[in-house]
Amino acid sequence: MKVAFFIGSESDLDVIKGALSIFEEFEVSFSLEVTSAHRSPERTKRLVMESEEQGAEIFICAAGKAAHLAGVVASHTTYPVIGVPVGGSDLDGLDALLSTVQMPKGVPVACMGIGKHGAINAAILAVQILSLKDESLREKFKQYKTKMADSIEASSEKVKEHL
Amino acid sequence: MKVAFFIGSESDLDVIKGALSIFEEFEVSFSLEVTSAHRSPERTKRLVMESEEQGAEIFICAAGKAAHLAGVVASHTTYPVIGVPVGGSDLDGLDALLSTVQMPKGVPVACMGIGKHGAINAAILAVQILSLKDESLREKFKQYKTKMADSIEASSEKVKEHL
Amino acid sequence: MKVAFFIGSESDLDVIKGALSIFEEFEVSFSLEVTSAHRSPERTKRLVMESEEQGAEIFICAAGKAAHLAGVVASHTTYPVIGVPVGGSDLDGLDALLSTVQMPKGVPVACMGIGKHGAINAAILAVQILSLKDESLREKFKQYKTKMADSIEASSEKVKEHL
Amino acid sequence: MKVAFFIGSESDLDVIKGALSIFEEFEVSFSLEVTSAHRSPERTKRLVMESEEQGAEIFICAAGKAAHLAGVVASHTTYPVIGVPVGGSDLDGLDALLSTVQMPKGVPVACMGIGKHGAINAAILAVQILSLKDESLREKFKQYKTKMADSIEASSEKVKEHL
Amino acid sequence: MKVAFFIGSESDLDVIKGALSIFEEFEVSFSLEVTSAHRSPERTKRLVMESEEQGAEIFICAAGKAAHLAGVVASHTTYPVIGVPVGGSDLDGLDALLSTVQMPKGVPVACMGIGKHGAINAAILAVQILSLKDESLREKFKQYKTKMADSIEASSEKVKEHL
Amino acid sequence: MKVAFFIGSESDLDVIKGALSIFEEFEVSFSLEVTSAHRSPERTKRLVMESEEQGAEIFICAAGKAAHLAGVVASHTTYPVIGVPVGGSDLDGLDALLSTVQMPKGVPVACMGIGKHGAINAAILAVQILSLKDESLREKFKQYKTKMADSIEASSEKVKEHL
Amino acid sequence: MKVAFFIGSESDLDVIKGALSIFEEFEVSFSLEVTSAHRSPERTKRLVMESEEQGAEIFICAAGKAAHLAGVVASHTTYPVIGVPVGGSDLDGLDALLSTVQMPKGVPVACMGIGKHGAINAAILAVQILSLKDESLREKFKQYKTKMADSIEASSEKVKEHL
Amino acid sequence: MKVAFFIGSESDLDVIKGALSIFEEFEVSFSLEVTSAHRSPERTKRLVMESEEQGAEIFICAAGKAAHLAGVVASHTTYPVIGVPVGGSDLDGLDALLSTVQMPKGVPVACMGIGKHGAINAAILAVQILSLKDESLREKFKQYKTKMADSIEASSEKVKEHL
Repeated sequence: MKVAFFIGSESDLDVIKGALSIFEEFEVSFSLEVTSAHRSPERTKRLVMESEEQGAEIFICAAGKAAHLAGVVASHTTYPVIGVPVGGSDLDGLDALLSTVQMPKGVPVACMGIGKHGAINAAILAVQILSLKDESLREKFKQYKTKMADSIEASSEKVKEHL
Repeated sequence: MKVAFFIGSESDLDVIKGALSIFEEFEVSFSLEVTSAHRSPERTKRLVMESEEQGAEIFICAAGKAAHLAGVVASHTTYPVIGVPVGGSDLDGLDALLSTVQMPKGVPVACMGIGKHGAINAAILAVQILSLKDESLREKFKQYKTKMADSIEASSEKVKEHL
Repeated sequence: MKVAFFIGSESDLDVIKGALSIFEEFEVSFSLEVTSAHRSPERTKRLVMESEEQGAEIFICAAGKAAHLAGVVASHTTYPVIGVPVGGSDLDGLDALLSTVQMPKGVPVACMGIGKHGAINAAILAVQILSLKDESLREKFKQYKTKMADSIEASSEKVKEHL
Repeated sequence: MKVAFFIGSESDLDVIKGALSIFEEFEVSFSLEVTSAHRSPERTKRLVMESEEQGAEIFICAAGKAAHLAGVVASHTTYPVIGVPVGGSDLDGLDALLSTVQMPKGVPVACMGIGKHGAINAAILAVQILSLKDESLREKFKQYKTKMADSIEASSEKVKEHL
Repeated sequence: MKVAFFIGSESDLDVIKGALSIFEEFEVSFSLEVTSAHRSPERTKRLVMESEEQGAEIFICAAGKAAHLAGVVASHTTYPVIGVPVGGSDLDGLDALLSTVQMPKGVPVACMGIGKHGAINAAILAVQILSLKDESLREKFKQYKTKMADSIEASSEKVKEHL
Repeated sequence: MKVAFFIGSESDLDVIKGALSIFEEFEVSFSLEVTSAHRSPERTKRLVMESEEQGAEIFICAAGKAAHLAGVVASHTTYPVIGVPVGGSDLDGLDALLSTVQMPKGVPVACMGIGKHGAINAAILAVQILSLKDESLREKFKQYKTKMADSIEASSEKVKEHL
Repeated sequence: MKVAFFIGSESDLDVIKGALSIFEEFEVSFSLEVTSAHRSPERTKRLVMESEEQGAEIFICAAGKAAHLAGVVASHTTYPVIGVPVGGSDLDGLDALLSTVQMPKGVPVACMGIGKHGAINAAILAVQILSLKDESLREKFKQYKTKMADSIEASSEKVKEHL
Repeated sequence: MKVAFFIGSESDLDVIKGALSIFEEFEVSFSLEVTSAHRSPERTKRLVMESEEQGAEIFICAAGKAAHLAGVVASHTTYPVIGVPVGGSDLDGLDALLSTVQMPKGVPVACMGIGKHGAINAAILAVQILSLKDESLREKFKQYKTKMADSIEASSEKVKEHL
C-alpha cells in the first residue's frame, strides 16, 4: 500500500471518488479510512502509525470546515501530507481551505483546490511524487498528460458544432 | 490550578498578557505553556492530561494562521475549551478565526474575537464559567461589570472636554 | 431550568433542533424563547432577568445577519453566553459570524460555528460547562465522546464497502 | 439639540472629528456621548430617552468590531439612526460594516462607509434629513455641494502643474 | 409624491415588493421607475429632477453588482438617498453592498442590508425621516414597532408548541 | 477573423453564448476554441500564433477557478486580451476574478465581471475597440446604446403595471 | 490627444504616475483631469464630451472605494473605458475592485489590478488598443515586451549573486 | 541538482530566504531563477526543460498577485510542483493564494501558506518528498522534527519567566 487516504466523515466519500479512480487507473495501491482529527484523535494517530507500517509513503486527507485532519496527520508523520479542503459548508469551503493551507512553519501540508477537482489533483500529485522512484509510473503519467491535452482538442471540435 | 492556558508560540505572549492580568485581578490560578498542535502534538496531549490532573477545569488556547491548537485540545478533553484566534498573519487573522470557530459537530470550541481583546474575553469567560460554582467570584465579576459601565461615563466626560 | 435558549426568529427553530435533542439526551432542562435584540429589546432584557430567576446558568442565542442577540444578552447578564451564528443570509452567515464573535473587551460571547452544527455544539458546550459541578453529567459526556469516536469506526467500515 | 452622536469608545473620537466640524459648519446643534451597547446597555438606553427629550431627531452611532451600538439605539427609538462602522480592527472594519448594515427587517440603520469619511457623510446625511423641514439648511447644503464641485476643478489645476 | 423609488432593472421588482407594501401601509405616496446608472444616465438624471419637482423628498435606489444607481442619484440631488444592495450576483451581493456603502466623503448614501429585508428597511427609514415633520406618521410607526414586538411574543408561543 | 475567443473548458460554452450573439449582431467575425492554460499549454500558444496570422486583433479568454488562460494568452501576444472570470466554483468566481484581474505590471488583461454578463461585456468591449478604426461599427454601437436606454423605459412601463 | 485620463481625487496622482511615464515612453498624447463621479457629475460628463471632441479614443479612470468613475464615464461614451481600482481604503481596494469590475451587461469597463501596477497596465492596454491602427506603436510595444523579458534575466543574475 | 526554485520577481528573494536555508541545512542541491509566467513565458518554459535535464525532480514557484508561475510550470512538467503565494499585494496575498491553489483537475500545484513560512514549508515538503528515496534524508528530517518539538519546550520555559 502506497497511499493512505483519510476522510473526515462518511459524507466526504462522494467528494473523493474521482481520486480513487485515478489510483485505479494508475494502479497505485491505497487504503481508505474515515477518521476525524477532533472526534477520533487516537484513532487518527494510530492509523498514521499503522499506515506507515503497511508501507504508506503519502497521506491524503480530505475534510471540511475547520479542516484540521491534514494538519494533525502531518504532526504525526514525516511523510508528505496532501490536504483536500471539502466545500459545502456555509462558507463554501473557504474555512476548510484556510484551515488546510495556512500551516505554521515546520509542518507543511500540500494543499489542493476545494472539492472534487482538488481530490483528483491530490491523487495525481501522489502519482507524481511516487513517480520519482518509479519510472514506469512517470511514463503512464506522461501519457495521461498527453491524453488530457488531446481531449481538449476534442472538446474544441464539439463546441464548434454548436456554433 | 483552574485554567490551563496554552499558546502556539512564544510570540503569542504579547497577545495574551491582558488575559493573565484578568486572572490576577480575579485571583484565578492558571498555568501557561507554549505548545503547538502541529510541532509538538505529543506534548500538547500530555499537557492536557497533566493539566486535568492538576485541577484544570477550563482550557484556553491562543494560536494563529491554521489555528488548530484549540481544536486539538478539545479532541483530548471533556472540559470546556476556549479558543483565541491570533491575528498578524497575511490574512489578518481571518484564517485563525475560521480555523478556530468552524468546528465539526461534537467537539465545540468557544471562539473569542481576534487578538488581544479576544484573549481578555477568554479570561473573562473563564471567570464567568468558574462563577457557576463560586458565588464570590460572581460577586467580583458583577463589580467588574459595574466598574466597566462606570468607566464609560468617565470616558464620556473626557471626550466632552475635547469639544 | 439550566439553560435559556433564545432564537432571533421563528425560522431559526429548524437550525437549533439538534441542540434541543442534545439537551434531551443529557437531561438538561432548558427554556426556549423567540426574542429579538432589535425588534423586542425590552422583552429580551426581561427574559434574561426571568431566566436567571428561574435558575438559568447559561444562555444560548442563535441569530442571523447582524446577529446582535448574543451580544445584547451578554450585556445584561454575568452568566456565560454562547452565540450561534445562523447562515442563510445573502452573505452565507459571514455577517452573523463576525457580528457574534468580534465582541469588545469585557463582554465575551462564546461563538460557535455557523448553523446546525454550531447549534449542536452550543448545547454540548453547555453540557461541558454544567459538568464542572455535576460529575454524573461529565460521565455521560465521556460516554458520548467515546460513542462518537466509535461511530467513526463504523462509518469507516461502511465507506470501505463502497470500494 | 438636533443630533445625538454616540461613540462606542474614547478612541473613536479621532474618527468622528470631521463629522463634528460639519455640524459646526452647518450650525447644527448636537450632543456627544461615549456609550457602549455591551458595556453600558442601561446608559445607552437612558441616553436615547434623554436625547429624545432634549430634542434629538437623529442619532448617529460610531462603533467598531461587532458594532452593535447603532442597532441597539435603533431598537430603542423611532427616530432615524445612522451607523458609522469604525475600522482599525484585525478585520479592517469589515466586521463593523456587516454588523451595522445587515439589520433585520423592521429596524433599519442607515449605514455609512467605514471610518472618517463615513463619519463625515453621517453628518452630511443628518444635514440632508434636517433640511426636509429647514429650507435655509438646504440652501447652505446646496452651496456646500457647489463648493465641493468647484474644489475638484481646483484640484485638477493643481494636479496638472505636476505634469 | 414623497418618495422616488428607482430600481436598476425589471428583475429587481421582486426584491422591493415588501418596501412598496410598507408605503401602502403607511400611506406614503411614492413613484417607481426602472432606470440604470449605466445604461440610461440621462434618464436617471432627468428622473431625479422630475421627482424633485413632483415633491419627492427622499430617493430609494435598489441595484445589484457594481451598484452605482444610489451614488449617481446622490450626485444629482441634495435630498437624502437610501441605497438597497441587491444580491443574486455571483458574489452574493457583496459587490453591490460595497459599491453602495463605501461612498466618498461629501456624497452620502444611507445603505441598507442586502436584498428584500434591506428594501423593507429602506421604506421604514423613509417613514422615519418623513415622520420628522409629520407627527401622525410617527404615531403610526410607534404602533408598527409595538406590533412588531408583540408578533415576536406570538412567534415564541408558536415555537414552544413544537417542543 | 477579428476576435479569437478561447474558453477553458467545454462547460464554459453556456456562459459565453451571449457574447457570440453580440458578435453576430455586430457582424464581427470570430473564432472559438477550447484550450487550457494548464492542460494544453502548447495548443494555447499555437492558437495564439495562428489566430494572429488569421487576423485576430483581440483575444477574449473565459476560464474559471485559478483562471490563468487570459494571463497566459497575454504573455504570448501584443494584442489586447480581455478576460472573463467564470463563476460556479466553490468560491463563486472570486478565485477566477482575482486570478484574472491582479496581473503583474507589464502584461495587462482587461477584466470583465464574473459570468454571462461579463462575457457579453467582453464582446461589447471588443466592438468598442474595433470601432476605433471602423466608424460604421461605432455607429451601430451608438444605436445599440440608444436602444438599450430605450428598453429601460419600456421596462419601467412594464413594472408600473404591477403596481 | 489620444487618451483621456481621469482620477477621482488629487491623492490618486501618486498611484498613476507610472502610467503617465508609459505614455511618455510611447509618445502617446493624453490629458489628465481630476473629476469625481459623485462630487462633480456635470464636470465629469462635460469632460467626457470635450475629451471626445479633442480626439480622445480611450478613457482611463482611477478611483477608490465605491469607485464609480469608470462606470459613469462608460455610461457617457461609446469609446473603450479602462478602470483602475485604487487601494488604500479600509478594505484595501476590494471595494474599488468590485465597484469597477462588476459592471452590468451592456456597459463594460476594462478593469485592471488594484493600484500602481494596475495603473501602469491601463496605460499599456491603451497602447495595445491604439496599436490596432498604428503599426509603429505595435513595433515599439514588441520591443518593450522583449526588454521586459530581458530584464527578468538580469534580475535573475542579480539574485544569484545573493546566494 | 534536485530542486528548481523559481521566483516571479527579484523582490520575492526576501520571502524565500528561509527556504534556501532549509536546503542548506539538509544539503539538498537546488537552483534559483527569477522568471515570470507572464513577462518571460519562453524563458519559464525553457528553464523547466533545462532544470529537468539537470536533474530537478521538484519545482518550487513563489509569486504574488495573479500568481500563475506555479500553474504554468506545472503545465510544462510531470514532476511535482510546489507553489508559494507571496503576500504584500493590496489584497494581502489572498489573490496569490487563490490563483495558486484553485488549479483545474489534472494539473495539481501543492500550495503552501502565504509568505515566508509558506516558503520554508515548501522546502520542507521537498525534503519530505526526496526522503521517499533517500532514507538518510528522512533520518535528518526526523531529527529536525524532534528538535522542533524540543524547541517548543524551551520556548515554554522562556515564556514562564515572564510571568
